[in-house]
Amino acid sequence: MSAAQAGPVLPDGVFSTDPATVDAHRLDRSGWVPEGQPLGVALAESVADVRAVLRHAHATGTPVVVRGAGTGLSGGAGATDGSIVLDLSRMNRITEISAADQLAVVQPGVITADLDRAAGAYGLRYAPDPASAAISTIGGNIATNAGGLRCAKYGVTRDSVLSLDVVLADGDLVTTGHRTVKDVTGYDLTGLFTGSEGTLGVIVGATVKLRPRPARTATLAAYFDDVASAAAAVTAIGAAGVQPAVAELLDAATLAAVEDANGRRPDRPAGAFLLVQTDGPAAEAEAADVHAVLGAHTARVAAAGDEAEGERLLAVRRQALPALERRGRVLIEDVAVPRSRLAEAVEEIQRISQETAVPVFTLAHAADGNLHPIVVVERDRELDEDVWAAADAIFTMALALGGTLTGEHGIGVLKRKWLGADLGERNLALQRRLRAVFDPTGILNPGKAV
Amino acid sequence: MSAAQAGPVLPDGVFSTDPATVDAHRLDRSGWVPEGQPLGVALAESVADVRAVLRHAHATGTPVVVRGAGTGLSGGAGATDGSIVLDLSRMNRITEISAADQLAVVQPGVITADLDRAAGAYGLRYAPDPASAAISTIGGNIATNAGGLRCAKYGVTRDSVLSLDVVLADGDLVTTGHRTVKDVTGYDLTGLFTGSEGTLGVIVGATVKLRPRPARTATLAAYFDDVASAAAAVTAIGAAGVQPAVAELLDAATLAAVEDANGRRPDRPAGAFLLVQTDGPAAEAEAADVHAVLGAHTARVAAAGDEAEGERLLAVRRQALPALERRGRVLIEDVAVPRSRLAEAVEEIQRISQETAVPVFTLAHAADGNLHPIVVVERDRELDEDVWAAADAIFTMALALGGTLTGEHGIGVLKRKWLGADLGERNLALQRRLRAVFDPTGILNPGKAV
Repeated sequence: MSAAQAGPVLPDGVFSTDPATVDAHRLDRSGWVPEGQPLGVALAESVADVRAVLRHAHATGTPVVVRGAGTGLSGGAGATDGSIVLDLSRMNRITEISAADQLAVVQPGVITADLDRAAGAYGLRYAPDPASAAISTIGGNIATNAGGLRCAKYGVTRDSVLSLDVVLADGDLVTTGHRTVKDVTGYDLTGLFTGSEGTLGVIVGATVKLRPRPARTATLAAYFDDVASAAAAVTAIGAAGVQPAVAELLDAATLAAVEDANGRRPDRPAGAFLLVQTDGPAAEAEAADVHAVLGAHTARVAAAGDEAEGERLLAVRRQALPALERRGRVLIEDVAVPRSRLAEAVEEIQRISQETAVPVFTLAHAADGNLHPIVVVERDRELDEDVWAAADAIFTMALALGGTLTGEHGIGVLKRKWLGADLGERNLALQRRLRAVFDPTGILNPGKAV
Repeated sequence: MSAAQAGPVLPDGVFSTDPATVDAHRLDRSGWVPEGQPLGVALAESVADVRAVLRHAHATGTPVVVRGAGTGLSGGAGATDGSIVLDLSRMNRITEISAADQLAVVQPGVITADLDRAAGAYGLRYAPDPASAAISTIGGNIATNAGGLRCAKYGVTRDSVLSLDVVLADGDLVTTGHRTVKDVTGYDLTGLFTGSEGTLGVIVGATVKLRPRPARTATLAAYFDDVASAAAAVTAIGAAGVQPAVAELLDAATLAAVEDANGRRPDRPAGAFLLVQTDGPAAEAEAADVHAVLGAHTARVAAAGDEAEGERLLAVRRQALPALERRGRVLIEDVAVPRSRLAEAVEEIQRISQETAVPVFTLAHAADGNLHPIVVVERDRELDEDVWAAADAIFTMALALGGTLTGEHGIGVLKRKWLGADLGERNLALQRRLRAVFDPTGILNPGKAV
């Protein structure tokens, strides 16, 4: 679609072919650079705009790449050659917050942290908290079924979505789900659109659950001699019947990077760091239980006496990614394994890093068995064969442990190669036929996801 | 398929055309009586048996009606004319319980309460607790996305399913999901099969989440002057930041039926009864908060001092359905509305009952806005036009309040008529095309669900 072609179907100011605008909408944060150039960017301001774009794209067979804030880490929002980029960031209104129904109705471009903040005025919160929450949109979070730290207790994005307004490939608008907590009327299209990475339809509105904002939060941190002890402690927390709100693990290399960034050289470097938060009415009692459990696995446990101390303990986790980014270009990987295989997975990643001589640092949402192996290369270095060999070994290891390719970032373009190995060919074929039902002409994010 | 035809494809003893066996497998508990007769019953003992049945059915175009314990309330498992009934109740083994991964791997015929009991030996529980838990199967629970009392805190069946083994319409076997807590590899087929009422595939295995068994439970009961006060109290409990594990409401008519069955005639009959349970490490503190909230809406609150007292308070709720079944034939309806519309919904049901002269008693999972209007007619009376007129008015009312046709029982055959009004025609058409991807020849539970 040229700007001239776009004239009749898109309102003034909605469609842009300005090179600077196009350039600002080509990439996500995965590091993946698509070949070629998109036709232009539709900066939709309404459902009507989105429908007009889709009707036009459907009639002309033009690919559409939907985009929230472009913070994705798998290439899902990378603008492929000849596509229209459909940017929803201007549709950023919180339409309603209902304290009685404990839900919010939002447009897709609302920044996730803004929603959480707005819910706070009602004593509520939006629980899913991807690390990108301050910059990513709720629409993007839903399209990728984003995770986060608090998933340990509150589940992933899908667990918070009640209903969606979706513009289909031909421009028709459907609503899935209901404004009810329970709903078994028909198939779970809400769950199907959640995590579909822009391939089944365009999410133009969402009704999401809010939850009571916990009155209390307690924070603990512990240093362990090795990852196996830290992982055993996480399992023991679960066995003690405690559901932590947050349980974050740093491996030795990541912890050393944080210490180094802070100009510290500990006499006795630890083999792993674990941050645990409990929340809710029994936060302190649960934290005391966690403290006892951790104490059986290491002597180095610190419990925050107040919020400021809690923030100091959290800082180690918060500084991990910035500390790695100081060292070079990062590729943030994402695999998930059964919780009981966490230690093996971290140890295998360390072994792979040594064998391939590719530096890999590991952060993990420990209670979920969701690991982020982070590859760090020189700043100007391409992600070359060695990097992908290490990534390949990590994916293969995750599958061998009964895990999966991606816990919360999605397939995008970067993981398509391994999809068949993970899902099996019959499952994958089924998913592709399902995709064709929603998008028979193949205009929605072609070449991405399944 | 005649028994002779079944010979080559089904092992000895698996397929039965014995009239008594067939008769025992014709109905579910909805009261719906299908016309005609099924060909026979396949009493599958293995995945291989199920695959053989499906391959045969696919090749011959024979309808297959899958069945667990036949406790469904919407006609979904009713055996239609010329179908093979595929009974999975013999596949009833708990394959694994993992304390470290907090999950169980089960065959579909496991009785739900048996799974919960087995998990108890590990300090865990299977949270979803449909009222039928003691007699229904986990496979049937998954196929209908069953709800229950504890959904208020722990979500519906779908929220507890991690992975499924599914035999497709042509006999192929696929696995969906993973043994991981987080998983965004491909579309959410696990969620799609859950609640698909035997129309997309046959669930032959499941990996389900287990949760720590709460060490503490506290129980309260309250009598209110009217439903509006009881519903306001439920909303106020949420506003106080408490997430009750159970919040069950009985309307005046249901409460009177219980009192009557117990031979009591209270001086001052109540307008509504509410049972609330809290659980977890702060159960008592939360119960104290609930007590204070309830006290602002009624003077008649009782808090259980111990487990035996808790059981006595629970008895009122437990006796509700038996008390109604003493009065005649019951049709257990099931609608859901946004939580804030609960009182309106109960009052509308009472109005509809009066206007149509059809006796309707209401039980509700109050914290979920999930209502069970229960029609009681004379024991030998057919569910005639008057009954369906009342049901129609109730469904229409639920939709008008922003609710849905069914919160936890499913569409089956009894609610198909209203599907278009609920979902919209485009959404329904999409669901039907999606169904055709999984079952192109239409052999899986034809005439049911979407």
